[in-house]
Amino acid sequence: MNRRIYLDYNASTPVDPRVIAGMSDKLSFYGNPSSIHEEGREARALVDEARVHVARLLNCDHRRIVFTSGGTESNNLAILGTARANREKGKHIITSAIEHSSVKNACEELSREGFDVTFTKPSVDGIVNPERIQDAIRDDTILITVMLANNEIGTIQSIPQICRIAKQQGIPVHTDAVQAPGKIPVDVTELGADLISISAHKIYGPKGAGALYISESVSVSPLARGGSHEKGLRPGTEPVHSIHGFGVAAKLLFDEGLPELLPMRCDLERGLLAAGMEIICKDSPRLPNTVNFYAPDWPGESLIMAFDLEGIAVSNGSACSSGIIEASHVLLALGYNDRVARSVIRVSIGKFTRPEDLDDLLRVIQDLNSGGMSS
Amino acid sequence: MNRRIYLDYNASTPVDPRVIAGMSDKLSFYGNPSSIHEEGREARALVDEARVHVARLLNCDHRRIVFTSGGTESNNLAILGTARANREKGKHIITSAIEHSSVKNACEELSREGFDVTFTKPSVDGIVNPERIQDAIRDDTILITVMLANNEIGTIQSIPQICRIAKQQGIPVHTDAVQAPGKIPVDVTELGADLISISAHKIYGPKGAGALYISESVSVSPLARGGSHEKGLRPGTEPVHSIHGFGVAAKLLFDEGLPELLPMRCDLERGLLAAGMEIICKDSPRLPNTVNFYAPDWPGESLIMAFDLEGIAVSNGSACSSGIIEASHVLLALGYNDRVARSVIRVSIGKFTRPEDLDDLLRVIQDLNSGGMSS
Repeated sequence: MNRRIYLDYNASTPVDPRVIAGMSDKLSFYGNPSSIHEEGREARALVDEARVHVARLLNCDHRRIVFTSGGTESNNLAILGTARANREKGKHIITSAIEHSSVKNACEELSREGFDVTFTKPSVDGIVNPERIQDAIRDDTILITVMLANNEIGTIQSIPQICRIAKQQGIPVHTDAVQAPGKIPVDVTELGADLISISAHKIYGPKGAGALYISESVSVSPLARGGSHEKGLRPGTEPVHSIHGFGVAAKLLFDEGLPELLPMRCDLERGLLAAGMEIICKDSPRLPNTVNFYAPDWPGESLIMAFDLEGIAVSNGSACSSGIIEASHVLLALGYNDRVARSVIRVSIGKFTRPEDLDDLLRVIQDLNSGGMSS
Repeated sequence: MNRRIYLDYNASTPVDPRVIAGMSDKLSFYGNPSSIHEEGREARALVDEARVHVARLLNCDHRRIVFTSGGTESNNLAILGTARANREKGKHIITSAIEHSSVKNACEELSREGFDVTFTKPSVDGIVNPERIQDAIRDDTILITVMLANNEIGTIQSIPQICRIAKQQGIPVHTDAVQAPGKIPVDVTELGADLISISAHKIYGPKGAGALYISESVSVSPLARGGSHEKGLRPGTEPVHSIHGFGVAAKLLFDEGLPELLPMRCDLERGLLAAGMEIICKDSPRLPNTVNFYAPDWPGESLIMAFDLEGIAVSNGSACSSGIIEASHVLLALGYNDRVARSVIRVSIGKFTRPEDLDDLLRVIQDLNSGGMSS
């Protein structure tokens, strides 16, 4: 095998060649979108056009889209921004124990700022029971933030149900939907959330661009101060080429629809089970592109390196932080022990994945199985 | 005249064709720099290489460079981050009355958070007297933030002198140096500042990348929370292609040195004076690329539109905010009246400017002078 097989789409997707072409073309549009001359107006038009494409993907009014530098910033703007802007109304935030580090750590920052945060536990199936959210609501709850789809294990939460519960109490809901577009439908109206984070580099767009949908009814404080860009919610000269790439990626996804990934995932899972692997949250509602598994007897890090040497890129747990193998807080929250939480391998596929890629992955596992694995 | 003449380099510089080539090439490096497989390591190597180039440009250790999304974020991280991290030590901040909106508004946010901010007035020559800074220092001063070069009028502050004063009292100094590289030398050791902001799109690099130099002696709190990217000071997946473009731009500037801009500026100024224009801060130490002028009888906005129709892009005051013509707070702080503060035109040149471009600008003014200007 001398080709590379990339199976880490949840960490970052390959950039669609049409996005690369569009961005390369627009790097020469150097005007500042805030300038009133022709160069500035051209740059502004690119940003506005991208906003329309992103809004159409989410089925919302383009005026409700704020561009950010990515998912982490969108999540922080939603959580720190909403809590700080509504401090007078109350100090209680509800989240789950399996959020992405940007949500988890933003909530922990709020604790340090004097807010009370409830970290709701999921069941072992990776699902946060909406009744648990309901039970956690207090008179001073000002925000509920629960992710749509988990970046590590891929489980999908019942956001519409959580939003119905929250709406009865007038509490805004944020959902980190970064892992969802391109894998499952993401529709603002159907979800019912007031704040929704997405990121370009998870939908075949570039790194450095994200968006936050903010409903009209929510007040949000900016994280940084400066010019009146993005209605004052996100100051700083817009990265026009990256936002343009985000818009192209959103348009492609809208026009072409979701790729069919579930049959490949199911075939892979059958092969993994046959090879003696354990699959995490096997029967839960999960993203059609994500499989987490572990070999009861093999440590995960050696396995990733073995795959990498064979030309296959996979991940263990969230690759979005440090590159250091720590026990996944998601798997620990599900009740797995530390050893398993360090050993789980994440395979995440996407529109460029072919069935042969997964056959190759299974062949490596079979070889390891027959040849043994030194741990 | 049917070509465009771009004279708004302080708003944003054209991207160097070699930066565009490098970035286009690297858009296909889609690995997440936090992933431990080959794709991730390739992306990480690009980020690390760029950090070395940026550090070399500033003559500092590459480990002291934190990448951000741009100048606004660098300034906010420096100001909000340092104040919040040192709240226990004191609550007083010193700045000037002519800072960029990202510094001005970050300081105003600190006021709302309970800090005391002194906005030091410059003289009419656009220079903040270091003695005024010295006089403003209190026992509880925890940060001094004064820009190196003004984005509107181009005046250069005595940062080394301000740093010597501050160092005697053990107070860290931040300088917004966004407008300086590519125009004047920016050397960490010579400046003596503890925190220095720069931006890629002001040095022929892409929008969406900036850096903050942070000396070892200063504690800074991050603006957002998430993974441990950039030593935890700036979480979020790095925009690899934009950071790579920043590195290429920094390397080009280091290798090629400063372009010779002052002779063109001086020629332009002679022409403007001959045409009856007034020049702002004419005899002050100023960036070699920036001229601010006004026609005593013409309103600035109509003048910008007239230039734009003739194919010449200039700006009035800071183009980095909203595109709305407001009276410049910088010119008001210098003591100009509201009418002048709305009328000043900024011409800012760069390495692609040719003397003929400025001749064309002068010709438009002469035509307006002879044909009259309807206001």
